Amino acid sequence: MELKTILGQYQDYIGKEVTISGWIRNHRKQKEFGFIDLHDGSCFKTIQCVYANELENFADIQTYRVGSTLEITGTLLESPAKGQTVELQATKVTLLGDCLENYPIQPKRHTREFLREQAYLRPRTNLFQAVFRVRSVISMAIHNYFQERNYVYVTTPLLTTADCEGSDQMFKVTTLNMHDIPKTEEGKCDFKEDLFRKETFITGTGQLHGEAFAMAFRNIYTFGPTFRTEKSNTKIHANEFWMIEPEIAFCDLEGLMDIEEEFLKYVIQYVIDKCPEEMAFFDSFVEKGLLAKLRNVLDSKFVRIDHKDCIDLLLNSGKDWEFTPDYEGDIAKEHEKFLTDHFGGPVFITNWPKDIKACYMKLNEDGKTVAAVDLVVPAAGELMGGSQREEDYEKLMKRIEEMEVDKTPIEWYCNLRAYGTCVHAGFGMGLERLVMYLTGIDNIRDAIPFARTPGSCDY
Amino acid sequence: MELKTILGQYQDYIGKEVTISGWIRNHRKQKEFGFIDLHDGSCFKTIQCVYANELENFADIQTYRVGSTLEITGTLLESPAKGQTVELQATKVTLLGDCLENYPIQPKRHTREFLREQAYLRPRTNLFQAVFRVRSVISMAIHNYFQERNYVYVTTPLLTTADCEGSDQMFKVTTLNMHDIPKTEEGKCDFKEDLFRKETFITGTGQLHGEAFAMAFRNIYTFGPTFRTEKSNTKIHANEFWMIEPEIAFCDLEGLMDIEEEFLKYVIQYVIDKCPEEMAFFDSFVEKGLLAKLRNVLDSKFVRIDHKDCIDLLLNSGKDWEFTPDYEGDIAKEHEKFLTDHFGGPVFITNWPKDIKACYMKLNEDGKTVAAVDLVVPAAGELMGGSQREEDYEKLMKRIEEMEVDKTPIEWYCNLRAYGTCVHAGFGMGLERLVMYLTGIDNIRDAIPFARTPGSCDY
Repeated sequence: MELKTILGQYQDYIGKEVTISGWIRNHRKQKEFGFIDLHDGSCFKTIQCVYANELENFADIQTYRVGSTLEITGTLLESPAKGQTVELQATKVTLLGDCLENYPIQPKRHTREFLREQAYLRPRTNLFQAVFRVRSVISMAIHNYFQERNYVYVTTPLLTTADCEGSDQMFKVTTLNMHDIPKTEEGKCDFKEDLFRKETFITGTGQLHGEAFAMAFRNIYTFGPTFRTEKSNTKIHANEFWMIEPEIAFCDLEGLMDIEEEFLKYVIQYVIDKCPEEMAFFDSFVEKGLLAKLRNVLDSKFVRIDHKDCIDLLLNSGKDWEFTPDYEGDIAKEHEKFLTDHFGGPVFITNWPKDIKACYMKLNEDGKTVAAVDLVVPAAGELMGGSQREEDYEKLMKRIEEMEVDKTPIEWYCNLRAYGTCVHAGFGMGLERLVMYLTGIDNIRDAIPFARTPGSCDY
Repeated sequence: MELKTILGQYQDYIGKEVTISGWIRNHRKQKEFGFIDLHDGSCFKTIQCVYANELENFADIQTYRVGSTLEITGTLLESPAKGQTVELQATKVTLLGDCLENYPIQPKRHTREFLREQAYLRPRTNLFQAVFRVRSVISMAIHNYFQERNYVYVTTPLLTTADCEGSDQMFKVTTLNMHDIPKTEEGKCDFKEDLFRKETFITGTGQLHGEAFAMAFRNIYTFGPTFRTEKSNTKIHANEFWMIEPEIAFCDLEGLMDIEEEFLKYVIQYVIDKCPEEMAFFDSFVEKGLLAKLRNVLDSKFVRIDHKDCIDLLLNSGKDWEFTPDYEGDIAKEHEKFLTDHFGGPVFITNWPKDIKACYMKLNEDGKTVAAVDLVVPAAGELMGGSQREEDYEKLMKRIEEMEVDKTPIEWYCNLRAYGTCVHAGFGMGLERLVMYLTGIDNIRDAIPFARTPGSCDY
């Protein structure tokens, strides 16, 4: 039986015999008794199993090390011990799998740096049990939110021969022998022998393909892995992470913000409901006040403010900024922090200067700003980035030319505006950012099962 | 309003004014009337909109081409026409987006080959509306099945520096300049300058990482894109596709088959329930008898038969085989077909000769076969491949040595058997195979939004 079932309905099992299997988290031995905390993977909690020297293999049991796999049969009893409701009075303890003495995960505090080195074992700790179950539940919340609202899940391709994102920012993919690259007469790499007969990349976005599907299915979302070649070794950058990119036809910037706000609140509520033990753990041991912060988000109406008005606010704040707020420029981390503190919650920053944003964003009537929106949240900073898309063919082509983007590989994308265009909008969100925001984990390496960062691609 | 809502509860809207937006699928003009079939992406069906010459822009409306985007306000009426329940008597028709005359998707039959060339527009056809919505609903069914049963969704990494699968079968990934590869003194590619400072690949499986998480969370599943460099241009091979890989601790081969069978039936039932119109379309126009085939699967108990007994059956069948059935060999397509015909439904083939299976599969007591299982289904062939994993450290190491697998990069994986091993099993299933099986689509290129096959990586 799974521990989750037993602990969830323990009153049904009190006094009854149950059999569980799992791993020893802790083992305290006394002369006549022993206490094993068993974790079975089905839930956050362990169960204390008490065994007495009446068991014929009592001496053997006392040798079982932390990390070993056991099957234990016993009677479920209400527990006299503090901090637990029930315990198991063992009648039979069987060793299923031994654990070497050098097992790195011992019942003591390990640093997160140490645990990153043990990436394949760290999900057996409380912290990573909580993080990775919450990550899974967040993923389900995302699918639920969109599917309940009739969105179609689109798996956009990762392999692409279009280098419109700038080939320096994308991984190159090849089947050629890296030690012996075939050459053209001009001494360049000869891609004719490669699987797709062209230089191939891993794309960093599914948005373009998503827009094509939104023109057919109205509301769509992507949810898949994304890759960046950035060499930044920071707490918030990884070279492989997961992204969600919804795209909505017949939706403008205001409508998009409504969806982003409803979506974020939905996911927060879902996780609080489904993972009470994990969230209580984060609240106590990772980020004090996490639950209050999230409940505050649920109760608030997110502020919507123009980029220009943000700059006014920052310039008039009387603060000494490391980066001077700039009407033509980006919003720095320190500015984001000021704004979320100032408004006491998430803030939508809208209508950004066109020159620092992408060519596909809808140009506003002022000719200077685009209908883009970033959602910044307390502590985590930018959580979602979205925009209304330019739906006018001529205006899009003009922006593409001004920004010197190669239009050949995205001709089909531009054609979407010639074959029944419509007002539409979408946003992108990194899953890991959301995991960090909902758990209080402050390093993206701890929000990904097996992280890939510059120089680090182990396991 | 969305058409799905209106058509789903049409009795609430009869006689009322509604406004819809969508794309013209078909446009029939008469002197005093016009008929527009509007599709809005929210559901499979279109709605017929009738407009009369009383409308002030009647002449303009008559020029609106197939593919154009419209907003139509009108009164919902019960329809006198055959094959539809309601129609919209238009009071206002506004053009939101024109469509060029060369729009490739016209209201006539297009070949699937032609539509593959129009990958970004084909979701606007009936066939691909149905295929890609069903693909989305299948994906949701998969997440639902596992999450309802407390499985943890694990996103395993795609980037890897371990080439244990054989580097010829994996894509290589690099940030180096392909035209000017840096060289070591020995003239080899110098990976020290690459992002991960080692040769890097895209892995073809998440199983190894999945096993590590199953040892922590008991039941887990992966669901993500997978890559193969195969040069085969067949109807069932693509270079990029999606895989589901569940891994279950404390589960043996029999338990695994129970899960596979329950899982497949769950997904079939879910799709039949959620997509009645799409499934009826496939049943009529793509694979006659599809629904009967699937209902038969729901009602049947899948046969479980040893590989050896399959070979007996095949040899005693009196058939002339292109590939002679072989006790030490694989089961060919023609054999699969015979077996599914013979048993009249899905068949689990178990206990395969060890030499044609992977080193991590559990060696049976006979020392000759492994506890592997393939599920073959009528028409689609192999749908799932799974096995009980070798949980014994020494036996695993012996198989790794016998099969000359490089153990350095998978040392951590082997260690899972030294740190609290347990009986466990898992399977892999390609999403596209399942989409093909449930829709009757016979070419994998038509089951993927944007397919990647040798020489073909467009859009």
